[in-house]
Amino acid sequence: MDAVNPSAKGAYEALTRLQLRLHRYNHLWMMVSWDRAAMMPPKGNEARAAAEAELSALIHRLRTDPQQVEWLAAADKEPLDDFERANLREIRRQWQLANALPESLVEARTLATARCEHAWRSQRKANDWAGFLANLREVVRITREEAKLLSDALGMSPYDALLDRFEAGMREAEVDRVFGELKQWLPALIARVKEKQAGELVLVPKGPFPIAKQREMSHAVMRILLFDFEAGRLDEAPHPFSGGVPEDVRLTTRYREDDFARSLFATIHETGHARFEQNLRRDWLGQPVARARSFGIHESQSLSFEMQLGRSRGFMDLLAPVLRDSFGPQIAFEPENLYLFFTRVKAENLIRVEADELTYPMHVILRFEIEKALIAGEIEPEDIPALWNEKVQAYLGLDTRGNFTDGCMQDVHWSEGLFGYFPDYTLGAMYAAQWFATIRKSHPDFDDRVRAGNLAFIFDWLRENIWLQGSRWETPELVRRASGETLDVAHFRRHLEARYAG
Amino acid sequence: MDAVNPSAKGAYEALTRLQLRLHRYNHLWMMVSWDRAAMMPPKGNEARAAAEAELSALIHRLRTDPQQVEWLAAADKEPLDDFERANLREIRRQWQLANALPESLVEARTLATARCEHAWRSQRKANDWAGFLANLREVVRITREEAKLLSDALGMSPYDALLDRFEAGMREAEVDRVFGELKQWLPALIARVKEKQAGELVLVPKGPFPIAKQREMSHAVMRILLFDFEAGRLDEAPHPFSGGVPEDVRLTTRYREDDFARSLFATIHETGHARFEQNLRRDWLGQPVARARSFGIHESQSLSFEMQLGRSRGFMDLLAPVLRDSFGPQIAFEPENLYLFFTRVKAENLIRVEADELTYPMHVILRFEIEKALIAGEIEPEDIPALWNEKVQAYLGLDTRGNFTDGCMQDVHWSEGLFGYFPDYTLGAMYAAQWFATIRKSHPDFDDRVRAGNLAFIFDWLRENIWLQGSRWETPELVRRASGETLDVAHFRRHLEARYAG
Repeated sequence: MDAVNPSAKGAYEALTRLQLRLHRYNHLWMMVSWDRAAMMPPKGNEARAAAEAELSALIHRLRTDPQQVEWLAAADKEPLDDFERANLREIRRQWQLANALPESLVEARTLATARCEHAWRSQRKANDWAGFLANLREVVRITREEAKLLSDALGMSPYDALLDRFEAGMREAEVDRVFGELKQWLPALIARVKEKQAGELVLVPKGPFPIAKQREMSHAVMRILLFDFEAGRLDEAPHPFSGGVPEDVRLTTRYREDDFARSLFATIHETGHARFEQNLRRDWLGQPVARARSFGIHESQSLSFEMQLGRSRGFMDLLAPVLRDSFGPQIAFEPENLYLFFTRVKAENLIRVEADELTYPMHVILRFEIEKALIAGEIEPEDIPALWNEKVQAYLGLDTRGNFTDGCMQDVHWSEGLFGYFPDYTLGAMYAAQWFATIRKSHPDFDDRVRAGNLAFIFDWLRENIWLQGSRWETPELVRRASGETLDVAHFRRHLEARYAG
Repeated sequence: MDAVNPSAKGAYEALTRLQLRLHRYNHLWMMVSWDRAAMMPPKGNEARAAAEAELSALIHRLRTDPQQVEWLAAADKEPLDDFERANLREIRRQWQLANALPESLVEARTLATARCEHAWRSQRKANDWAGFLANLREVVRITREEAKLLSDALGMSPYDALLDRFEAGMREAEVDRVFGELKQWLPALIARVKEKQAGELVLVPKGPFPIAKQREMSHAVMRILLFDFEAGRLDEAPHPFSGGVPEDVRLTTRYREDDFARSLFATIHETGHARFEQNLRRDWLGQPVARARSFGIHESQSLSFEMQLGRSRGFMDLLAPVLRDSFGPQIAFEPENLYLFFTRVKAENLIRVEADELTYPMHVILRFEIEKALIAGEIEPEDIPALWNEKVQAYLGLDTRGNFTDGCMQDVHWSEGLFGYFPDYTLGAMYAAQWFATIRKSHPDFDDRVRAGNLAFIFDWLRENIWLQGSRWETPELVRRASGETLDVAHFRRHLEARYAG
């Protein structure tokens, strides 16, 4: 392209300046959110909530600033390069999402979900489905209205519009296709693995595992994974998460004296999210195009670290010395035993967040099937428990009749109005399998390299193909460029079969 | 007063709503400032600076919102009660300060002080006065212009206008009076104490003092001082400070393995600031009237804790078991020896921040005399070293010729344009002495009570007379109400004589 008079991109540049301001306000938001979860003492809560609400209102005003209508129309006709066009696409998407809903609905949603989530905390413990149902009805009613409005604005079905918020471009039909394939072979595979593992001898590491030592272990494994401690930190919070900003990533994990494996893999998981953020394109930072593509792609990075690399045979040779240094020598820390221990399938487990890699997708599929029927109006909230019981029996051979606590009330998502989010967990697992199939193909000595501590080839591939790409491409194109083909469930299947039934 | 129609206070209420928004934005500002000093990894700096600048611009726009002109005029005529009138007075003061300076000057000041402070960090180490002078000239030029504009806006002399920013109502003439008194007897007292202490045997506690143990010690002493850990926390930073917000106070201290006394008294000092904040009136929080009165009054609280209570004879009985628990038993931890050790005068010390209670005022007085001459245009920045040498010789019997590092370049204040701030340290010490003279008068058994761990009578007095008063009264009235008289240096003199020459 010829040199362009800067003023010829005036509208586009006005949009990018507004994005930069949003990026800075978002920085403040992310930092105080992290602080709230990891640092804030309890009596700070009320003043913090007021300060966050003020900031949130400010960000909302900026996102919905009506000047953007004109700028968006004008920018379309400006001489932009490909990268700028991609950025403009993301800016437009953000504008549409911010403006599709009337303020009154956003407020009603905030109130209803806050009430439902807050009550859920005690209702879940009390197995109080009737109490929960009363609040959930209101959340579902509002979510359906929201989905309808988004559907009108974006020109897609209501459930698609919810999916699209978290995984841009993903459609129910595509999720049906890939989950449909999974359902054909995964239950049989689970049964086979259960039988195989019943005959295996696995040594369980002996605790206690002092928390100060688990902290050392976490930092050591983050160093192996090349987390940049000059640009981030690890702290503690009740629920592990990756927060902060790309320039300063704030991870949290949690510790229990009787179990080091949870904090270990929570830390590895969050480090995957963190390295994505730490390696986004710096020259475009502050613009949507430099942001992580979607929740599913983000999850593909955390699961690349936690499942693909972190539970690979080779990685056990790197974990063993870390565990010995932290907790002293144990035979259970031998790499071969660690591999068996960390790939143990807990088929009797009812809880999604505690599920192993193999059974996890079935937990997701049953939620996806219920929530899409709910949004479509094919079922009502009161139908959930019966459907849940039926599916958990069919897909996992488990029984949750009368047990709402560990059944349909176990997740926080629906109480918060997060419908359309669950599929991302398993989409992420499938993307991750596809990335590692690609990496292993060009590196047949994958496990030897990992065992020797040579991880650069993996990080280089992820950086080049995922991290630096940000939101440059829509997801199918990102997947095709990275792996040479669109999403193919076969990679996930081969990965699970090799690891669990090999 | 009769019941008042709410709309009769419409202008006043509009002002208070704006203050509440400022309070919330300020919450964000205080939290990210604390984070920057205590948590942020180095590579987060650039993005943080941009985010802070955005927030700072937003706060400035709100502070200078021209709607306030009309509201301020109208509110004067509204039927306000005394508390509301005091709040209006503080709002007006804030408005005047925010609007007295043109944006161009504020920007020039930000640039000049940032350059001067940044260069100072290395220039001080390199003893490079000539390099520092070049930048300081510009800072002084801008500060004089600033002082002139503030002087015009507030109707007081230029140096008074600078003083007034930190210590509302304080005037150069009053500082001259109290510092003039101090100069009459303090140098002779220092000489007497030096001689007396030369003959004393003091055991120096033996280190190392492991940092983890110093952390335990700090938390233990904060518990003794009733810091509310549900509404604040203690972390670490290169320079100890009290940050955060009244609802969630964030203290920092710093640790050195070879010295526990620094971190101990830094923690006690900051806890004094913290308890003031934690005990401001909650029903008015968010309004200027509920804020701490001034820097000098704030310092009177930190010095009440660090010097008046924290180095009292009785308090040694409370410190001794904390030190033994943290570091194991030592004869040096006997209360009588601790008292001698913690009240040791280091008369050969050149550095203000390391000065003891007795010599500290002389460090402040010499700075006050130099900076007021500088602002008045009686001297120029190049005259500082000669004056400094002359005064440090006359007031402290010390020699800093050619030693700029430990002489006139030791403080960060002037490089940051903080002229008019130094007097507050010693005003704070004198206020604190006056508070404790009042408390001791009604409690002749002061030391016995303290020794027995009964500190409630002290905190009750401070809460009632200082903390809950916030900015309800102008300072002389606050002092009179608390102690029955205006500031009287005699209390400080009696305190120092009793402690050091008794």
